[in-house]
Amino acid sequence: MSNKNDKAEQKAITKREDDYSEWYQDIVEQAELAEHSPVRGCMVIKPYGYAIWELMQKDLDKRFKAKEVQNAYFPLFIPQSFLTKEAQHVEGFAPELAVVTHAGGEKLDEPLVVRPTSETIIYATYSKWIQSYRDLPLLINQWANVVRWELRTRLFLRTTEFLWQEGHTVHATEDDAEDFTKQMLDVYKDFAEEIMALPVITGRKSDSEKFAGAVRTYCIEAMMQDGKALQSGTSHMLGQNFAKAFDVKFLDADGEEKYGWQTSWGVSTRLIGGLIMAHSDDKGLVLPPRLAPHQVVIVPISASEQEQEAVNGKALEIKDQLEEKGVRVKIDDRDMRPGPRFFEWEKKGVPVRIEIGPKDLAAGSVVAVRRDTADKATLTEEVLVDTVIDLLDQIQKDLFDKALNFRNENTVSATDYEEFKKVIEGHFVKTYWCGSADCEAEIKADTKATIRCIPFNQGEEMGKCVKCGKESDVQVIIAKAY
Amino acid sequence: MSNKNDKAEQKAITKREDDYSEWYQDIVEQAELAEHSPVRGCMVIKPYGYAIWELMQKDLDKRFKAKEVQNAYFPLFIPQSFLTKEAQHVEGFAPELAVVTHAGGEKLDEPLVVRPTSETIIYATYSKWIQSYRDLPLLINQWANVVRWELRTRLFLRTTEFLWQEGHTVHATEDDAEDFTKQMLDVYKDFAEEIMALPVITGRKSDSEKFAGAVRTYCIEAMMQDGKALQSGTSHMLGQNFAKAFDVKFLDADGEEKYGWQTSWGVSTRLIGGLIMAHSDDKGLVLPPRLAPHQVVIVPISASEQEQEAVNGKALEIKDQLEEKGVRVKIDDRDMRPGPRFFEWEKKGVPVRIEIGPKDLAAGSVVAVRRDTADKATLTEEVLVDTVIDLLDQIQKDLFDKALNFRNENTVSATDYEEFKKVIEGHFVKTYWCGSADCEAEIKADTKATIRCIPFNQGEEMGKCVKCGKESDVQVIIAKAY
Repeated sequence: MSNKNDKAEQKAITKREDDYSEWYQDIVEQAELAEHSPVRGCMVIKPYGYAIWELMQKDLDKRFKAKEVQNAYFPLFIPQSFLTKEAQHVEGFAPELAVVTHAGGEKLDEPLVVRPTSETIIYATYSKWIQSYRDLPLLINQWANVVRWELRTRLFLRTTEFLWQEGHTVHATEDDAEDFTKQMLDVYKDFAEEIMALPVITGRKSDSEKFAGAVRTYCIEAMMQDGKALQSGTSHMLGQNFAKAFDVKFLDADGEEKYGWQTSWGVSTRLIGGLIMAHSDDKGLVLPPRLAPHQVVIVPISASEQEQEAVNGKALEIKDQLEEKGVRVKIDDRDMRPGPRFFEWEKKGVPVRIEIGPKDLAAGSVVAVRRDTADKATLTEEVLVDTVIDLLDQIQKDLFDKALNFRNENTVSATDYEEFKKVIEGHFVKTYWCGSADCEAEIKADTKATIRCIPFNQGEEMGKCVKCGKESDVQVIIAKAY
Repeated sequence: MSNKNDKAEQKAITKREDDYSEWYQDIVEQAELAEHSPVRGCMVIKPYGYAIWELMQKDLDKRFKAKEVQNAYFPLFIPQSFLTKEAQHVEGFAPELAVVTHAGGEKLDEPLVVRPTSETIIYATYSKWIQSYRDLPLLINQWANVVRWELRTRLFLRTTEFLWQEGHTVHATEDDAEDFTKQMLDVYKDFAEEIMALPVITGRKSDSEKFAGAVRTYCIEAMMQDGKALQSGTSHMLGQNFAKAFDVKFLDADGEEKYGWQTSWGVSTRLIGGLIMAHSDDKGLVLPPRLAPHQVVIVPISASEQEQEAVNGKALEIKDQLEEKGVRVKIDDRDMRPGPRFFEWEKKGVPVRIEIGPKDLAAGSVVAVRRDTADKATLTEEVLVDTVIDLLDQIQKDLFDKALNFRNENTVSATDYEEFKKVIEGHFVKTYWCGSADCEAEIKADTKATIRCIPFNQGEEMGKCVKCGKESDVQVIIAKAY
């Protein structure tokens, strides 16, 4: 969309230090990832943003299938009465529901809720599917849209409608369910770290932060560049709460009828928000190569028609060579000066730019530029393909290391509440918590920070609850969050 | 789900000649493709049915991308006022709308319609995206769920919610738009014939059958085994109707501001219904290899534990060899007699079954059975992989040929109305139509049959309108339809 690009070119991206929130908005807009729709709170995911989502889906889907999870599809609508069957669940979701009251020109006998999540409608179905222990485990995932009526929305991070996947499993024993809940959390952790280049902390949510209806919620939490936390994925051990509400029972090998043990787990288009905020800089989006729709952009440069033919031919040749090795390549041979073309792909976060001009052609080389560091290198044709492939791996690794260093540098400890209040802004605070919901609520009221998670990785030592000073062996990460 | 299988085993599939409609339902149920949900008119697509949809999506998506179409995502909700902007469009869809009136605990100022199709919300967005002729063509597709409130539903064929893709493009000239409309129809035709093994007739809809808001609707029509037609995909030339309603304008190269020319096109999970009805038989589902989640099922057979180890080992070996060549293989080594296992995969339409028993093992061969013809062959290990791959190609081709022969045998002509009424049941009738909406309406009132399409492939001759006898050069296909 050429006109838009010309306009975008003129508009500078706000600097992070000037206004972090504006910076985020500018990147979403100028990298053409998404925009607000005419429907309040809903977003339009633009082609470039959607291409990132497709790459995420493809990788996650493969990981789910490796766990023997099958995809299926359940209805968008949920009878209102279903939602009320699990008391905590309806309490958690009631304020956010969108409700269909009329259809086909008539008022409905029972209003239908647009799914905010699908535990209820799926488990009502599971109760018919499962009879025997031989039907277990039942491992199903769905890729779908869900709706939660949000008052304050931000593109990708919090929107009324969003895209996600939700896995829903049933197991014969508590141990099996607990084990699978953690296996799926590991899938999310591996995906975040290996594919998104996003280091995450794994752990358990406090009771007040857990999923409405779950026994335990496990999560991956990532640090953004403003030191705030982004909950990036959750895996819930549901126990038998929903099984009892929806009569998910099976005849066990011992001849006894038992309730199933259930899990659910999900990640959403919110991950794209996390991806943007983890790596991007004041020049625009920075994408890890594994999620870049174009991993390499080739920009041929010429001053005459004759030169143009030669450099474009070489660009095509290089593209073919790289694509043969599985690299995603885009040629930008638009009839524009090189500057605006460089600038556009920089804003869009393409990991490696290759420039080919007549002089390069004569020398049998090209210039390759890294998006993340701006490092330039002249590469001869012989080493080009291998070097670019190595470079992509290096960028992937460097982005992860950079984000990890950033998190380490911005994770602090606090032993008393005054110290805590001084450092909570812009940091993960590693400290102790007595386990009381009152302490947790007071911390939140005073600072807007929340217990992000109780990390799996607990130390041996004891400490004092940062709020009340009571002795405790429970270490927590507290931070402000998106 | 073992128990279900045991039950299904006991239940016979209704014969086509006894009750075609029951036969269809039985296959959907016993092949575990889908089921009715607790929400009226909505279906649950079960894992095996969804796996077929995933294969369809993957192939179609590749074809769209080859046409430079990009995926994106637009909101589920449409402000009611948007729908009313194109007069014919709202008239066509108003009776089928589901409406959200309350959200977040409050009554909405303006009700939101759950998208029945997305022309309006997408084109409201396009009007902001497009400024110049350089922004064209704009070629976008979305994979999404849509809702149309249907009173009488049938799994896959007509459901309140269904999954589909909808492409929406904008072009600078009428010719470009017309050309693209037809290109996408060809994509659908190729997909139906090459992948679904489903021969289709391409042509134009009459005005009364066209999409609400379109200038012209092109379609692919397929014959089911009861001689009825299934509209399997449509591609609409929208002209400037929506562009004018939603202000989709661009500054052309000549400096003039012009309205864009638009197209939209879609296929849905209804295709799965067509796939079932085109090829299946009284034993169950028959799948063309290109859409079979498992193209080959290997059933190892043994009488002792020692035998079991040996045949299972061989099964695994063959699976690896076939998968290396890109064949999708399932081993069914469940501890059950062979009969019920054969029976299950027969019902589920797996194209080739390979049986391995101790005698086969000793002879260095296996038995391969075609699902479509029940032909058995003994294959030695040396030729196994190549023969199976050839066999899959042959089955794909034979299913297409069989469906084409069936259509040819059941396509008849009629020169007068009495003759027409005698043959319309169970046939495509090739005849002439004067072009009057009255004749068309009377035919429908008398016989429930409709003009399925005005085929592109028109003869040279003239004929008489089957209803009024008026001389005409317009040949049409008339049939009852799903």
